[in-house]
Amino acid sequence: MKHLDEIRLEHVDDLALGTAFLGTGGGGDPYLGKLALVNAIETGGPVPLVQPESIDETSCVVSLSGVGAPMISAEKLPNGVEGVHAVRSLERYAGVSVDALIAAEIGGANGLVPMYTAHHLGVPVVDGDGMGRAYPETQMETFSIYGISATPMAAVDEFGDAAVITARDSLAAERILRQVALSMGGNCMCADHLMRGEDVRRFAVQGTVSLAVELGRATREASDVGELVSATEPLLTASGYGVPRVLFEGKVIDVRKDMVGGYDIGEIVAQSFDGKSDAVIRVKNEYLVVEVDGDVRATVPDLIGVFDRETLLPISSERLRYGLRIAVLGIGAPPLYTTPEALLATAPPAFGFDLPYRRLD
Amino acid sequence: MKHLDEIRLEHVDDLALGTAFLGTGGGGDPYLGKLALVNAIETGGPVPLVQPESIDETSCVVSLSGVGAPMISAEKLPNGVEGVHAVRSLERYAGVSVDALIAAEIGGANGLVPMYTAHHLGVPVVDGDGMGRAYPETQMETFSIYGISATPMAAVDEFGDAAVITARDSLAAERILRQVALSMGGNCMCADHLMRGEDVRRFAVQGTVSLAVELGRATREASDVGELVSATEPLLTASGYGVPRVLFEGKVIDVRKDMVGGYDIGEIVAQSFDGKSDAVIRVKNEYLVVEVDGDVRATVPDLIGVFDRETLLPISSERLRYGLRIAVLGIGAPPLYTTPEALLATAPPAFGFDLPYRRLD
Repeated sequence: MKHLDEIRLEHVDDLALGTAFLGTGGGGDPYLGKLALVNAIETGGPVPLVQPESIDETSCVVSLSGVGAPMISAEKLPNGVEGVHAVRSLERYAGVSVDALIAAEIGGANGLVPMYTAHHLGVPVVDGDGMGRAYPETQMETFSIYGISATPMAAVDEFGDAAVITARDSLAAERILRQVALSMGGNCMCADHLMRGEDVRRFAVQGTVSLAVELGRATREASDVGELVSATEPLLTASGYGVPRVLFEGKVIDVRKDMVGGYDIGEIVAQSFDGKSDAVIRVKNEYLVVEVDGDVRATVPDLIGVFDRETLLPISSERLRYGLRIAVLGIGAPPLYTTPEALLATAPPAFGFDLPYRRLD
Repeated sequence: MKHLDEIRLEHVDDLALGTAFLGTGGGGDPYLGKLALVNAIETGGPVPLVQPESIDETSCVVSLSGVGAPMISAEKLPNGVEGVHAVRSLERYAGVSVDALIAAEIGGANGLVPMYTAHHLGVPVVDGDGMGRAYPETQMETFSIYGISATPMAAVDEFGDAAVITARDSLAAERILRQVALSMGGNCMCADHLMRGEDVRRFAVQGTVSLAVELGRATREASDVGELVSATEPLLTASGYGVPRVLFEGKVIDVRKDMVGGYDIGEIVAQSFDGKSDAVIRVKNEYLVVEVDGDVRATVPDLIGVFDRETLLPISSERLRYGLRIAVLGIGAPPLYTTPEALLATAPPAFGFDLPYRRLD
């Protein structure tokens, strides 16, 4: 798969579609991020991408993402420069100058955040991210999993209010950050994991910006679920993910979700078109577990995607509605997420499910 | 009334009793703070007090206090140096060196916090505070009311986790701070209102440390409620407070309280000894409103104190229990709290009560 060296206007639609593909239901709907990125490129030119292996070992990189319940970000509009303020706050606090940004998660709107922020900061964006998808919590980033401190982190809102958090570990930082997000109306922008180029080389899920563009293109060009699977398979496996599998097809018959503790929590029930089979998808911002007729078919850290069967568009969890006709795809997680330390942070027990993780083959 | 120039071991008991007197039910039970202060003085010597009028105009002063529901602080023990960490975090963030501490509120345990913290920092404590009592929220401090920014503020917990908050105004800062306190287990220590000596001279409620020691002594020496009132009256009026009035005497017959949004919220019902009269006291950490047989008898910003009728000890809101025999005292607020801008922040409507403020005469 070819790696891009910049994001141009012609890439934006595919990039947004690809981040939604990798979003596993979370990371926020990319629509607003897409508008912001189009605006950034129109005024500032293409966004330079840097490959992890080309980053200077000693350069200073931070991960950046929106934090909060996706349901909130659909209604509470950003001012578009929260990321700039978050990075500047962190730079000021830590006495550093940031050389490049990396997406905390490539999934959903958060995959686009570094790009329209980099424009204002005059720095490139790393072709990679800290999750290879979207997850709901900070300590689930590869950087935290492999020992980079999540703090100091800077959380800011659209009014410029800010909190710079330092904590003993990423779990404690996440707990404080989540409450700060609630105090800021349910979401905020967060710059964290101040690290060096060599950390990015070792711990980023690599090439995921380019992958997202390619996945977006393949999704756009596919005409049915079968084509979607066959076109995305070589892209995914070349990037270390598993083969995409269709786990279920049917119609959404129930959506039960609430905002609890700053997350979208709930479950979605779908029924097969012949009415003989039911699927349940458990949600915490992202799709975490799929059961079909009571059997677990896929779990975190593997990716679970829900696609509109007619348009083939990925559907984020806050947009799932009764009556949608969907295909549920499962994709094995990349290698950085199948180690013992990664599974401690992201396997089903980390979300309160008493289930083992068995990677989709 | 004489102003002390230092707090020695012999003052500690009276100081703790006096801060409870001025605590209006809140600010936390001073018992643990008393132990910490005794320890600080035994190891580091007396705590120097500085009168507001003697502070250098350009010196750097911060207010310091515990934040959270008093119910929590009765069970979640501090490590004793949270205040040191909070001040150091703020100094580091703002690039300043603090010359003196002042209590955000003289009421309750918070009246003692700056003293056992100053010991570690090697700075004096101002004889005064930012409330003249205790209130539940940051924007109710005189410093905020009269235009000093509450932020940057540093909130820390007993593990050293910290959040440095900046916000557009004190109300926004308070909202973030309250959620941070919740994320830290229900309370935290906060250094805020970074100000100059000249601000302290103008906006501090002056002499309240010395006043607390004198009130404590008078309370200890009184043998009944009448003596308590007559002995404390000259001290209070000399400091700008009103004459203390006995509003009710009786037995507690109901205590309804919950922790809501990080505050102790509820009401206490007492019945007169002849059974003919009932009093209701509304609580948000502090005692806010007293009604006797449906008539409002006192409200914030006037001070409402509840005393054990037998021991004459002030009772903080989290310690009020069924069966206690109490005297309820009302005391007019000092002049800094009867201006229009102060009433906006601290009169009954600021707490959601549709009641006018009429100062106790």
